Amino acid sequence: MPIFKVAIAGFGGVGRATADLLLARRNRYLQVYGADVRLVAVCGSRAGLTDPTGLEPQGLNRLEPGLSGPDFIEASGADILIEAGPSDFRTGGPGLAYIRSSLLAGRHAIVISKGALVHSGPELRALATASGAMLKLSGAAAAALPTIDLIEQSLKGCEVLQIEGILNATTNFLLDAMMNQGLGFDEALGRAQASGFAEADPRNDTEGWDTASKLLILANFGLDEELTMDDLVVEGIQSVGAGRIDAWRAQGLVPKLVGSLSRMNGKTSAKVGVRTYPLTDPLAHVSGKNKAIRITTDAMGETIAIGSGTEPLATAAAALKDLEHILTSTVARAGTRPEVSR
Amino acid sequence: MPIFKVAIAGFGGVGRATADLLLARRNRYLQVYGADVRLVAVCGSRAGLTDPTGLEPQGLNRLEPGLSGPDFIEASGADILIEAGPSDFRTGGPGLAYIRSSLLAGRHAIVISKGALVHSGPELRALATASGAMLKLSGAAAAALPTIDLIEQSLKGCEVLQIEGILNATTNFLLDAMMNQGLGFDEALGRAQASGFAEADPRNDTEGWDTASKLLILANFGLDEELTMDDLVVEGIQSVGAGRIDAWRAQGLVPKLVGSLSRMNGKTSAKVGVRTYPLTDPLAHVSGKNKAIRITTDAMGETIAIGSGTEPLATAAAALKDLEHILTSTVARAGTRPEVSR
Repeated sequence: MPIFKVAIAGFGGVGRATADLLLARRNRYLQVYGADVRLVAVCGSRAGLTDPTGLEPQGLNRLEPGLSGPDFIEASGADILIEAGPSDFRTGGPGLAYIRSSLLAGRHAIVISKGALVHSGPELRALATASGAMLKLSGAAAAALPTIDLIEQSLKGCEVLQIEGILNATTNFLLDAMMNQGLGFDEALGRAQASGFAEADPRNDTEGWDTASKLLILANFGLDEELTMDDLVVEGIQSVGAGRIDAWRAQGLVPKLVGSLSRMNGKTSAKVGVRTYPLTDPLAHVSGKNKAIRITTDAMGETIAIGSGTEPLATAAAALKDLEHILTSTVARAGTRPEVSR
Repeated sequence: MPIFKVAIAGFGGVGRATADLLLARRNRYLQVYGADVRLVAVCGSRAGLTDPTGLEPQGLNRLEPGLSGPDFIEASGADILIEAGPSDFRTGGPGLAYIRSSLLAGRHAIVISKGALVHSGPELRALATASGAMLKLSGAAAAALPTIDLIEQSLKGCEVLQIEGILNATTNFLLDAMMNQGLGFDEALGRAQASGFAEADPRNDTEGWDTASKLLILANFGLDEELTMDDLVVEGIQSVGAGRIDAWRAQGLVPKLVGSLSRMNGKTSAKVGVRTYPLTDPLAHVSGKNKAIRITTDAMGETIAIGSGTEPLATAAAALKDLEHILTSTVARAGTRPEVSR
């Protein structure tokens, strides 16, 4: 029976949830793919754990100092890396080194954090192509919301003309509060921070960079674009004042922070900013932690997806969806063909 | 260069649109898959055309009497059948014989009409498994709306707990008219028939059988269920009276004909009937020709997809999406791996 050794780099809430879900699904991997999937290593920035025979859930609370870094993952003998570290698109974050070394070694990489993909996407794609390793990133492209899946599977063969996405929960929360509770931006932000909906430094969300990062990943990995942050016009919601809020309310419009992309005559333009939707538009009803995307294609018209999973479980499930696609293609290349009748 | 010979059985609006779109995409198949895709045969119930070197668009208006039937397709040397005939779930329709003979011969089948899949789904799956042929049916499972794709790709690894689908355009049109124009069922139906939104005999739509057929296909091919029409409770909208319409309007609820399925403790129950949605629910805003599905899973919560392509193009595109998945897996099995970096 084929053995698949998985390592998880980045062991915060998402990394831990991914480990727990993976271990809980070992029996599924056995039954569906005839594969023995083992979690052979996990690590945070300073500590980790490794066991070539496979870690068990109860052991994951006792990380050992010093076990961390790309060399630690390399030494674990893992075939597949799941990268779940903090995201920093300006530097690539700690994930970049892990992903780079994995792809160089031909180790498949499942990426959850956006930083490295935004900072060094083309380099990472080239590394994957060169080594034959698979680079998967469902967890980084709006997590449980189907985005690249839709383009590559559901809309396969169609030409994507436009994309618009509501991809950030914090700005959903803030705009909802400003529209429905009559709060100003600062007051809404204070409440969001108090209830854990916004970070101490919220600018990555409120100024649109998180949305821009997801849009960029979607464009570059889903549509083979080669955009950088410099190609995007990025506006956040920090300057949305009471006047605009009142006007939108009076017109029955609902504002969302939207990442949008359009392609015409071979030219692609992308931006992040506030868009308003009438109440008859399903996107007007995507609020709170929900995310949504609308993709317009030449042959299938408009396709909308709306996701609403609870974190960190939903993001963990998105990463493990990638794992199953790796298992599927590996098993398929090994000769057997699961799901032959699909 | 690998040659893929495609035959289309059933040459009404959808079959013809599929032929036109396939021929228009030949260059794409060449560039993306390195495949020479040829349309070697098309046929309706009484006439057809065949050319082993590949038919051209301008020739498709001159079908020759007598060229029809499974033997005609067999003789065309096609590797892949696209079945686009009329749908009859009570008999399997003309498509059943075409699909059966194709799968028996190891010829991949892309099915657009629902009849054969509802009538003989398990038999057809068994034939495909036995011969190694692929049986694809995106076009039959609500056409351009992603349904089985979502389950197999976007939600892969998750356990599906519930599904609800707005899958029929005619009942959308009728319920909209009854809610917004104050028409009774018969009057709304008359207008729908006059404007081509409903058939002369509308019962397949209005009594819920079209929705039930799509739900059954989704359950049996997307979730490995083995349901028959007898397992479904099917209620249509023909008996919806002014009283209920007024009450819903007063409560701010929007009625839709919904096919729903739920799985608990290994038991699956499925039914078709009217459901109402508050205006805050995106499904309340799925009207006219749009279709939608909400899938609830254990790990990803609720995922909604909404589709709105114009027919017959959108259905043709759904069938040709299946064609590209066949090309992908065939090319992959041949050794090369397209989209390695995905």
